[in-house]
Amino acid sequence: MRNIKLKIAYDGGRYYGWQRLKDNDQTIQGKLESVISEMVQSYTEIIGSGRTDAGVHAKGQITNFHTDSIMTLEEMHRYINRYLPQDIVVKEITQVSDRFHSRYHAKSKKYTYYVWNHYTHSPFHRKYSCHLPKKLDVPLMKEAAAKFIGTHDFIGFSSLKKTKKSTLRTINELNILSQDNLMSFTFVGDGFLYNMIRIIVGSLVEIGLHEKELSHIDKVLEKNVRSKAGITMPPQGLFLEEVYY
Amino acid sequence: MRNIKLKIAYDGGRYYGWQRLKDNDQTIQGKLESVISEMVQSYTEIIGSGRTDAGVHAKGQITNFHTDSIMTLEEMHRYINRYLPQDIVVKEITQVSDRFHSRYHAKSKKYTYYVWNHYTHSPFHRKYSCHLPKKLDVPLMKEAAAKFIGTHDFIGFSSLKKTKKSTLRTINELNILSQDNLMSFTFVGDGFLYNMIRIIVGSLVEIGLHEKELSHIDKVLEKNVRSKAGITMPPQGLFLEEVYY
Repeated sequence: MRNIKLKIAYDGGRYYGWQRLKDNDQTIQGKLESVISEMVQSYTEIIGSGRTDAGVHAKGQITNFHTDSIMTLEEMHRYINRYLPQDIVVKEITQVSDRFHSRYHAKSKKYTYYVWNHYTHSPFHRKYSCHLPKKLDVPLMKEAAAKFIGTHDFIGFSSLKKTKKSTLRTINELNILSQDNLMSFTFVGDGFLYNMIRIIVGSLVEIGLHEKELSHIDKVLEKNVRSKAGITMPPQGLFLEEVYY
Repeated sequence: MRNIKLKIAYDGGRYYGWQRLKDNDQTIQGKLESVISEMVQSYTEIIGSGRTDAGVHAKGQITNFHTDSIMTLEEMHRYINRYLPQDIVVKEITQVSDRFHSRYHAKSKKYTYYVWNHYTHSPFHRKYSCHLPKKLDVPLMKEAAAKFIGTHDFIGFSSLKKTKKSTLRTINELNILSQDNLMSFTFVGDGFLYNMIRIIVGSLVEIGLHEKELSHIDKVLEKNVRSKAGITMPPQGLFLEEVYY
Protein backbone atom coordinates (compact mmCIF):
# COMPACT_ATOMS: atom_id res chain seq x y z
CA MET A 1 0.00 0.00 0.00
CA ARG A 2 1.10 3.54 -0.63
CA ASN A 3 1.53 5.91 2.32
CA ILE A 4 0.57 9.49 1.41
CA LYS A 5 1.59 12.47 3.53
CA LEU A 6 -0.32 15.75 3.35
CA LYS A 7 0.62 19.17 4.69
CA ILE A 8 -2.60 21.01 5.43
CA ALA A 9 -3.73 24.53 6.29
CA TYR A 10 -7.15 25.33 7.69
CA ASP A 11 -9.17 28.14 9.11
CA GLY A 12 -10.68 26.39 12.13
CA GLY A 13 -13.34 29.04 12.71
CA ARG A 14 -16.25 26.97 11.34
CA TYR A 15 -15.14 23.60 12.73
CA TYR A 16 -15.48 21.53 15.88
CA GLY A 17 -11.76 20.83 15.82
CA TRP A 18 -9.60 18.20 14.18
CA GLN A 19 -11.11 14.99 15.50
CA ARG A 20 -13.95 13.27 13.65
CA LEU A 21 -17.19 13.12 15.65
CA LYS A 22 -19.82 10.47 15.34
CA ASP A 23 -22.86 12.57 14.56
CA ASN A 24 -21.20 15.64 13.15
CA ASP A 25 -19.03 15.92 10.10
CA GLN A 26 -18.09 19.54 10.81
CA THR A 27 -14.56 18.49 11.76
CA ILE A 28 -11.31 18.77 9.80
CA GLN A 29 -10.61 15.04 9.96
CA GLY A 30 -14.20 14.29 8.96
CA LYS A 31 -14.03 16.57 5.91
CA LEU A 32 -10.71 15.09 4.77
CA GLU A 33 -11.86 11.52 5.28
CA SER A 34 -15.05 12.07 3.35
CA VAL A 35 -13.29 13.68 0.34
CA ILE A 36 -10.39 11.20 0.29
CA SER A 37 -12.60 8.12 0.83
CA GLU A 38 -14.74 9.26 -2.08
CA MET A 39 -11.63 9.82 -4.19
CA VAL A 40 -10.22 6.33 -3.64
CA GLN A 41 -13.68 4.70 -3.44
CA SER A 42 -12.98 3.06 -0.10
CA TYR A 43 -13.14 4.20 3.53
CA THR A 44 -9.80 5.77 4.37
CA GLU A 45 -8.66 6.83 7.81
CA ILE A 46 -6.68 10.06 7.96
CA ILE A 47 -4.07 10.12 10.72
CA GLY A 48 -3.19 13.58 12.06
CA SER A 49 -0.05 14.69 13.94
CA GLY A 50 -2.38 15.63 16.79
CA ARG A 51 -5.75 17.13 17.51
CA THR A 52 -6.50 20.79 17.30
CA ASP A 53 -9.45 22.09 19.32
CA ALA A 54 -12.59 23.72 18.01
CA GLY A 55 -11.77 27.10 16.48
CA VAL A 56 -8.00 26.54 16.36
CA HIS A 57 -6.26 27.12 13.01
CA ALA A 58 -3.38 25.36 11.26
CA LYS A 59 -0.83 26.45 8.68
CA GLY A 60 1.12 23.21 8.68
CA GLN A 61 -0.85 20.29 10.11
CA ILE A 62 0.68 16.98 8.96
CA THR A 63 -1.47 13.97 8.15
CA ASN A 64 -1.08 10.68 6.33
CA PHE A 65 -3.20 7.90 4.89
CA HIS A 66 -2.72 4.53 3.25
CA THR A 67 -4.23 3.68 -0.11
CA ASP A 68 -4.04 1.29 -3.03
CA SER A 69 -5.11 4.01 -5.43
CA ILE A 70 -3.10 4.31 -8.63
CA MET A 71 -3.80 8.02 -9.03
CA THR A 72 -0.73 10.23 -9.37
CA LEU A 73 0.11 12.64 -6.54
CA GLU A 74 -0.81 15.56 -8.81
CA GLU A 75 -4.21 14.04 -9.56
CA MET A 76 -4.87 13.48 -5.87
CA HIS A 77 -3.76 17.00 -4.97
CA ARG A 78 -6.09 18.54 -7.54
CA TYR A 79 -9.01 16.30 -6.60
CA ILE A 80 -8.75 16.86 -2.84
CA ASN A 81 -8.44 20.64 -3.05
CA ARG A 82 -11.30 20.79 -5.52
CA TYR A 83 -13.72 18.98 -3.24
CA LEU A 84 -12.59 20.29 0.15
CA PRO A 85 -14.33 23.41 1.49
CA GLN A 86 -12.31 26.57 0.75
CA ASP A 87 -11.16 26.96 4.34
CA ILE A 88 -9.20 23.69 4.26
CA VAL A 89 -6.30 23.45 1.80
CA VAL A 90 -3.77 20.72 1.06
CA LYS A 91 -0.51 22.62 0.59
CA GLU A 92 1.78 19.70 -0.18
CA ILE A 93 1.39 16.03 -0.99
CA THR A 94 4.21 13.49 -0.95
CA GLN A 95 4.56 9.73 -0.91
CA VAL A 96 6.50 8.51 2.12
CA SER A 97 7.84 5.23 3.46
CA ASP A 98 5.36 2.68 4.69
CA ARG A 99 6.44 3.17 8.26
CA PHE A 100 5.84 6.92 8.50
CA HIS A 101 3.13 7.77 11.06
CA SER A 102 2.24 11.44 11.39
CA ARG A 103 1.43 11.20 15.11
CA TYR A 104 3.92 8.67 16.49
CA HIS A 105 6.88 10.09 14.62
CA ALA A 106 6.29 13.77 15.38
CA LYS A 107 9.31 14.99 17.35
CA SER A 108 8.20 18.51 18.10
CA LYS A 109 5.71 21.16 17.09
CA LYS A 110 5.55 24.89 16.63
CA TYR A 111 2.45 26.84 17.64
CA THR A 112 1.80 30.58 17.59
CA TYR A 113 -0.79 32.45 19.62
CA TYR A 114 -1.78 35.97 18.45
CA VAL A 115 -3.03 38.83 20.61
CA TRP A 116 -4.28 42.10 19.15
CA ASN A 117 -3.25 44.65 21.76
CA HIS A 118 -4.90 47.96 20.95
CA TYR A 119 -7.81 50.01 22.19
CA THR A 120 -9.83 49.05 19.08
CA HIS A 121 -9.91 45.66 17.39
CA SER A 122 -8.91 45.14 13.76
CA PRO A 123 -11.53 43.81 11.34
CA PHE A 124 -8.77 41.77 9.67
CA HIS A 125 -7.41 40.14 12.84
CA ARG A 126 -10.55 39.61 14.86
CA LYS A 127 -11.00 36.01 13.70
CA TYR A 128 -7.30 35.24 14.08
CA SER A 129 -6.32 36.78 17.41
CA CYS A 130 -7.60 37.55 20.87
CA HIS A 131 -8.39 41.23 21.39
CA LEU A 132 -6.91 42.77 24.55
CA PRO A 133 -7.60 46.51 24.69
CA LYS A 134 -5.41 47.27 27.76
CA LYS A 135 -1.73 47.90 27.08
CA LEU A 136 0.41 44.91 28.06
CA ASP A 137 3.81 45.13 29.79
CA VAL A 138 5.77 43.26 27.12
CA PRO A 139 9.25 43.30 28.76
CA LEU A 140 7.77 41.80 31.93
CA MET A 141 5.97 39.14 29.89
CA LYS A 142 9.24 38.21 28.16
CA GLU A 143 10.86 37.78 31.56
CA ALA A 144 7.97 35.56 32.63
CA ALA A 145 8.10 33.54 29.40
CA ALA A 146 11.70 32.53 30.08
CA LYS A 147 10.53 30.59 33.15
CA PHE A 148 8.67 28.07 30.96
CA ILE A 149 11.72 27.08 28.91
CA GLY A 150 13.01 23.60 29.68
CA THR A 151 11.45 20.42 31.01
CA HIS A 152 8.67 20.83 33.57
CA ASP A 153 5.60 19.07 34.82
CA PHE A 154 2.99 21.25 33.09
CA ILE A 155 -0.08 19.65 34.68
CA GLY A 156 -0.82 22.96 36.45
CA PHE A 157 -0.97 24.65 33.04
CA SER A 158 -3.41 22.24 31.44
CA SER A 159 -7.08 21.35 31.52
CA LEU A 160 -6.34 17.67 32.01
CA LYS A 161 -8.20 15.78 34.66
CA LYS A 162 -6.18 13.17 36.59
CA THR A 163 -3.98 11.16 34.27
CA LYS A 164 -1.59 8.27 34.67
CA LYS A 165 0.49 9.37 31.70
CA SER A 166 3.50 11.59 32.17
CA THR A 167 2.75 15.31 32.13
CA LEU A 168 6.41 16.25 31.77
CA ARG A 169 6.98 18.29 28.64
CA THR A 170 9.90 20.24 27.23
CA ILE A 171 9.49 23.74 25.81
CA ASN A 172 12.51 24.58 23.67
CA GLU A 173 11.45 28.07 22.60
CA LEU A 174 8.89 30.61 23.70
CA ASN A 175 9.34 33.87 21.82
CA ILE A 176 7.20 36.93 22.23
CA LEU A 177 7.17 39.44 19.38
CA SER A 178 5.29 42.70 19.38
CA GLN A 179 4.90 44.55 16.11
CA ASP A 180 2.51 47.42 15.62
CA ASN A 181 -0.47 46.19 17.61
CA LEU A 182 -0.04 42.48 16.99
CA MET A 183 1.71 40.32 19.58
CA SER A 184 2.73 36.77 18.83
CA PHE A 185 3.72 34.02 21.26
CA THR A 186 5.64 31.29 19.44
CA PHE A 187 6.13 27.93 21.17
CA VAL A 188 8.37 25.09 20.06
CA GLY A 189 8.20 21.97 22.19
CA ASP A 190 8.10 18.18 22.16
CA GLY A 191 4.40 18.11 22.92
CA PHE A 192 1.70 20.13 24.63
CA LEU A 193 -0.93 19.05 27.14
CA TYR A 194 -4.61 19.81 26.67
CA ASN A 195 -5.07 23.62 26.54
CA MET A 196 -1.47 24.12 27.71
CA ILE A 197 -0.57 26.87 25.25
CA ARG A 198 -3.79 28.80 25.79
CA ILE A 199 -3.32 28.62 29.58
CA ILE A 200 0.36 29.64 29.44
CA VAL A 201 -0.55 32.64 27.26
CA GLY A 202 -3.39 33.45 29.68
CA SER A 203 -0.91 33.36 32.57
CA LEU A 204 1.52 35.63 30.69
CA VAL A 205 -1.30 38.04 29.90
CA GLU A 206 -2.25 38.30 33.59
CA ILE A 207 1.36 39.23 34.33
CA GLY A 208 1.41 41.71 31.45
CA LEU A 209 -1.69 43.36 32.95
CA HIS A 210 0.01 43.44 36.38
CA GLU A 211 -2.76 41.30 37.80
CA LYS A 212 -0.32 38.67 39.03
CA GLU A 213 3.31 38.65 40.14
CA LEU A 214 6.16 37.05 38.23
CA SER A 215 6.78 34.68 41.12
CA HIS A 216 3.32 33.27 40.61
CA ILE A 217 4.53 31.22 37.65
CA ASP A 218 7.25 29.54 39.70
CA LYS A 219 4.65 28.57 42.26
CA VAL A 220 2.35 26.94 39.73
CA LEU A 221 5.28 25.14 38.09
CA GLU A 222 6.35 23.81 41.51
CA LYS A 223 2.98 22.95 42.99
CA ASN A 224 1.13 22.07 39.81
CA VAL A 225 -2.23 23.47 40.86
CA ARG A 226 -4.35 24.33 37.84
CA SER A 227 -6.66 26.62 39.78
CA LYS A 228 -3.75 28.98 40.36
CA ALA A 229 -2.71 29.32 36.72
CA GLY A 230 -4.09 31.92 34.34
CA ILE A 231 -7.24 31.92 32.27
CA THR A 232 -7.57 29.83 29.11
CA MET A 233 -7.28 32.13 26.11
CA PRO A 234 -9.92 31.73 23.37
CA PRO A 235 -9.14 29.36 20.46
CA GLN A 236 -9.21 31.76 17.51
CA GLY A 237 -5.74 33.17 18.32
CA LEU A 238 -4.01 29.79 18.09
CA PHE A 239 -2.24 28.39 15.00
CA LEU A 240 -0.45 25.05 14.60
CA GLU A 241 2.47 26.26 12.48
CA GLU A 242 4.71 23.28 11.89
CA VAL A 243 5.31 19.69 12.87
CA TYR A 244 8.90 18.46 12.96
CA TYR A 245 9.92 14.83 12.33
CA MET B 1 -20.83 73.03 15.13
CA ARG B 2 -18.09 70.52 15.86
CA ASN B 3 -16.31 68.77 13.00
CA ILE B 4 -15.34 65.19 13.89
CA LYS B 5 -12.79 63.20 11.90
CA LEU B 6 -12.76 59.40 11.98
CA LYS B 7 -10.11 56.98 10.79
CA ILE B 8 -11.86 53.77 9.84
CA ALA B 9 -10.94 50.18 8.96
CA TYR B 10 -13.35 47.78 7.33
CA ASP B 11 -13.53 44.35 5.81
CA GLY B 12 -15.51 45.15 2.67
CA GLY B 13 -16.39 41.52 1.94
CA ARG B 14 -20.02 41.78 3.04
CA TYR B 15 -20.71 45.26 1.68
CA TYR B 16 -21.83 46.94 -1.53
CA GLY B 17 -19.01 49.45 -1.20
CA TRP B 18 -18.63 52.78 0.56
CA GLN B 19 -21.47 54.79 -0.93
CA ARG B 20 -24.92 54.78 0.66
CA LEU B 21 -27.63 53.30 -1.58
CA LYS B 22 -31.28 54.21 -1.49
CA ASP B 23 -32.83 50.82 -0.92
CA ASN B 24 -29.93 49.02 0.67
CA ASP B 25 -28.15 49.82 3.87
CA GLN B 26 -25.46 47.20 3.29
CA THR B 27 -22.91 49.93 2.59
CA ILE B 28 -20.12 51.31 4.78
CA GLN B 29 -21.42 54.87 4.61
CA GLY B 30 -24.95 53.66 5.32
CA LYS B 31 -23.87 51.71 8.43
CA LEU B 32 -21.88 54.65 9.77
CA GLU B 33 -24.65 57.16 9.13
CA SER B 34 -27.24 55.01 10.81
CA VAL B 35 -25.13 54.46 13.98
CA ILE B 36 -23.93 58.07 14.20
CA SER B 37 -27.35 59.60 13.44
CA GLU B 38 -28.82 57.45 16.21
CA MET B 39 -26.03 58.52 18.55
CA VAL B 40 -26.55 62.26 18.05
CA GLN B 41 -30.33 61.87 17.57
CA SER B 42 -30.34 63.72 14.26
CA TYR B 43 -29.64 62.75 10.65
CA THR B 44 -25.91 63.14 10.09
CA GLU B 45 -24.14 62.88 6.76
CA ILE B 46 -20.78 61.13 6.81
CA ILE B 47 -18.30 62.48 4.26
CA GLY B 48 -15.68 59.99 3.05
CA SER B 49 -12.30 60.70 1.43
CA GLY B 50 -13.60 58.77 -1.56
CA ARG B 51 -15.65 55.76 -2.51
CA THR B 52 -14.44 52.22 -2.29
CA ASP B 53 -16.12 49.63 -4.50
CA ALA B 54 -18.10 46.59 -3.42
CA GLY B 55 -15.79 44.08 -1.75
CA VAL B 56 -12.84 46.48 -1.36
CA HIS B 57 -11.29 46.82 2.12
CA ALA B 58 -9.86 49.78 4.04
CA LYS B 59 -7.31 50.08 6.83
CA GLY B 60 -7.30 53.87 6.91
CA GLN B 61 -10.38 55.39 5.28
CA ILE B 62 -10.86 58.99 6.50
CA THR B 63 -14.30 60.45 7.09
CA ASN B 64 -15.79 63.44 8.88
CA PHE B 65 -19.14 64.69 10.10
CA HIS B 66 -20.59 67.81 11.72
CA THR B 67 -22.54 67.69 14.94
CA ASP B 68 -23.84 69.77 17.84
CA SER B 69 -23.52 66.82 20.19
CA ILE B 70 -21.88 67.52 23.54
CA MET B 71 -20.60 63.97 23.93
CA THR B 72 -16.86 63.65 24.55
CA LEU B 73 -14.71 62.05 21.83
CA GLU B 74 -14.17 59.03 24.08
CA GLU B 75 -17.91 58.59 24.55
CA MET B 76 -18.49 58.81 20.79
CA HIS B 77 -15.66 56.38 20.05
CA ARG B 78 -17.06 53.80 22.47
CA TYR B 79 -20.64 54.26 21.28
CA ILE B 80 -19.86 53.98 17.56
CA ASN B 81 -17.66 50.89 17.85
CA ARG B 82 -20.21 49.27 20.12
CA TYR B 83 -23.05 49.60 17.62
CA LEU B 84 -21.16 49.12 14.34
CA PRO B 85 -20.94 45.59 12.93
CA GLN B 86 -17.64 43.91 13.89
CA ASP B 87 -16.21 44.24 10.39
CA ILE B 88 -16.21 48.05 10.56
CA VAL B 89 -14.04 49.69 13.23
CA VAL B 90 -13.34 53.32 14.09
CA LYS B 91 -9.61 53.34 14.85
CA GLU B 92 -9.20 57.02 15.74
CA ILE B 93 -11.47 59.95 16.44
CA THR B 94 -10.35 63.58 16.59
CA GLN B 95 -11.98 66.97 16.50
CA VAL B 96 -10.72 69.09 13.61
CA SER B 97 -11.16 72.62 12.32
CA ASP B 98 -14.51 73.58 10.87
CA ARG B 99 -13.05 73.79 7.39
CA PHE B 100 -11.65 70.26 7.17
CA HIS B 101 -13.33 68.20 4.43
CA SER B 102 -12.20 64.59 4.11
CA ARG B 103 -12.75 64.48 0.34
CA TYR B 104 -11.82 67.96 -0.90
CA HIS B 105 -8.68 68.21 1.21
CA ALA B 106 -7.25 64.76 0.47
CA LYS B 107 -3.89 65.32 -1.27
CA SER B 108 -2.99 61.73 -2.02
CA LYS B 109 -3.82 58.15 -1.16
CA LYS B 110 -2.07 54.88 -0.65
CA TYR B 111 -3.65 51.63 -1.85
CA THR B 112 -2.28 48.08 -1.77
CA TYR B 113 -3.39 45.19 -3.95
CA TYR B 114 -2.51 41.64 -2.81
CA VAL B 115 -1.96 38.60 -5.00
CA TRP B 116 -1.46 35.10 -3.57
CA ASN B 117 0.92 33.49 -6.05
CA HIS B 118 1.16 29.80 -5.31
CA TYR B 119 -0.20 26.56 -6.70
CA THR B 120 -2.63 26.29 -3.75
CA HIS B 121 -4.56 29.13 -2.14
CA SER B 122 -4.23 30.02 1.54
CA PRO B 123 -7.33 29.75 3.73
CA PHE B 124 -6.15 32.89 5.55
CA HIS B 125 -5.59 35.05 2.46
CA ARG B 126 -8.40 33.92 0.19
CA LYS B 127 -10.72 36.76 1.24
CA TYR B 128 -7.92 39.33 1.12
CA SER B 129 -6.06 38.59 -2.09
CA CYS B 130 -6.50 37.34 -5.63
CA HIS B 131 -5.25 33.80 -6.12
CA LEU B 132 -2.96 33.28 -9.14
CA PRO B 133 -1.61 29.73 -9.26
CA LYS B 134 0.87 30.29 -12.13
CA LYS B 135 4.29 31.62 -11.17
CA LEU B 136 4.65 35.31 -12.07
CA ASP B 137 7.78 36.89 -13.53
CA VAL B 138 8.31 39.45 -10.75
CA PRO B 139 11.43 41.23 -12.13
CA LEU B 140 9.62 41.84 -15.42
CA MET B 141 6.57 43.16 -13.56
CA LYS B 142 8.76 45.59 -11.62
CA GLU B 143 10.16 46.87 -14.90
CA ALA B 144 6.64 47.33 -16.23
CA ALA B 145 5.47 49.03 -13.02
CA ALA B 146 8.07 51.78 -13.45
CA LYS B 147 6.30 52.90 -16.63
CA PHE B 148 3.27 54.07 -14.64
CA ILE B 149 5.23 56.43 -12.38
CA GLY B 150 4.60 60.10 -13.11
CA THR B 151 1.73 62.07 -14.62
CA HIS B 152 -0.26 60.35 -17.36
CA ASP B 153 -3.70 60.31 -18.87
CA PHE B 154 -4.93 57.08 -17.31
CA ILE B 155 -8.28 56.89 -19.16
CA GLY B 156 -7.06 53.71 -20.90
CA PHE B 157 -6.57 52.10 -17.50
CA SER B 158 -10.01 52.88 -16.12
CA SER B 159 -13.61 51.76 -16.48
CA LEU B 160 -14.81 55.32 -16.98
CA LYS B 161 -17.19 56.07 -19.78
CA LYS B 162 -16.64 59.35 -21.62
CA THR B 163 -15.96 62.15 -19.19
CA LYS B 164 -15.38 65.89 -19.47
CA LYS B 165 -13.27 65.96 -16.32
CA SER B 166 -9.52 65.59 -16.53
CA THR B 167 -8.27 62.04 -16.48
CA LEU B 168 -4.68 63.07 -15.82
CA ARG B 169 -3.37 61.55 -12.62
CA THR B 170 0.03 61.33 -10.97
CA ILE B 171 1.36 58.10 -9.53
CA ASN B 172 4.24 58.86 -7.15
CA GLU B 173 5.04 55.31 -6.10
CA LEU B 174 4.24 51.83 -7.35
CA ASN B 175 6.16 49.23 -5.37
CA ILE B 176 5.94 45.50 -5.88
CA LEU B 177 7.00 43.29 -3.01
CA SER B 178 7.05 39.51 -3.08
CA GLN B 179 7.42 37.66 0.21
CA ASP B 180 6.82 33.95 0.56
CA ASN B 181 3.77 33.52 -1.66
CA LEU B 182 2.20 36.91 -1.09
CA MET B 183 2.78 39.72 -3.59
CA SER B 184 1.77 43.28 -2.83
CA PHE B 185 1.38 46.21 -5.24
CA THR B 186 1.49 49.49 -3.32
CA PHE B 187 0.31 52.65 -5.07
CA VAL B 188 0.69 56.22 -3.86
CA GLY B 189 -0.91 58.88 -6.04
CA ASP B 190 -2.93 62.05 -6.07
CA GLY B 191 -6.08 60.22 -7.11
CA PHE B 192 -7.22 57.17 -8.98
CA LEU B 193 -9.83 56.79 -11.70
CA TYR B 194 -12.63 54.24 -11.50
CA ASN B 195 -11.09 50.72 -11.32
CA MET B 196 -7.67 52.17 -12.22
CA ILE B 197 -5.66 50.22 -9.65
CA ARG B 198 -7.38 46.94 -10.40
CA ILE B 199 -6.80 47.40 -14.14
CA ILE B 200 -3.14 48.41 -13.72
CA VAL B 201 -2.53 45.32 -11.55
CA GLY B 202 -4.37 43.21 -14.15
CA SER B 203 -2.09 44.64 -16.87
CA LEU B 204 1.01 43.90 -14.77
CA VAL B 205 -0.21 40.35 -14.16
CA GLU B 206 -0.62 39.74 -17.90
CA ILE B 207 2.99 40.81 -18.35
CA GLY B 208 4.10 38.63 -15.42
CA LEU B 209 2.41 35.67 -17.13
CA HIS B 210 4.16 36.56 -20.43
CA GLU B 211 0.79 37.00 -22.08
CA LYS B 212 1.61 40.54 -23.16
CA GLU B 213 4.79 42.44 -24.01
CA LEU B 214 6.26 45.23 -21.92
CA SER B 215 5.76 47.66 -24.79
CA HIS B 216 2.04 47.10 -24.56
CA ILE B 217 1.83 49.40 -21.55
CA ASP B 218 3.44 52.28 -23.41
CA LYS B 219 0.91 51.85 -26.19
CA VAL B 220 -2.08 52.01 -23.87
CA LEU B 221 -0.61 55.02 -22.05
CA GLU B 222 -0.12 56.78 -25.37
CA LYS B 223 -3.34 55.84 -27.13
CA ASN B 224 -5.62 55.56 -24.11
CA VAL B 225 -7.68 52.66 -25.39
CA ARG B 226 -9.28 50.76 -22.52
CA SER B 227 -9.92 47.67 -24.60
CA LYS B 228 -6.19 47.14 -24.92
CA ALA B 229 -5.40 47.30 -21.20
CA GLY B 230 -5.40 44.29 -18.89
CA ILE B 231 -8.27 42.62 -17.06
CA THR B 232 -9.83 44.17 -13.98
CA MET B 233 -8.64 42.29 -10.92
CA PRO B 234 -11.29 41.20 -8.39
CA PRO B 235 -12.05 43.56 -5.48
CA GLN B 236 -11.10 41.41 -2.48
CA GLY B 237 -7.35 41.99 -3.02
CA LEU B 238 -7.62 45.79 -2.72
CA PHE B 239 -7.04 47.83 0.46
CA LEU B 240 -7.28 51.60 0.93
CA GLU B 241 -4.31 52.01 3.28
CA GLU B 242 -3.98 55.72 3.99
CA VAL B 243 -5.23 59.13 3.00
CA TYR B 244 -2.78 62.03 3.14
CA TYR B 245 -3.80 65.65 3.80
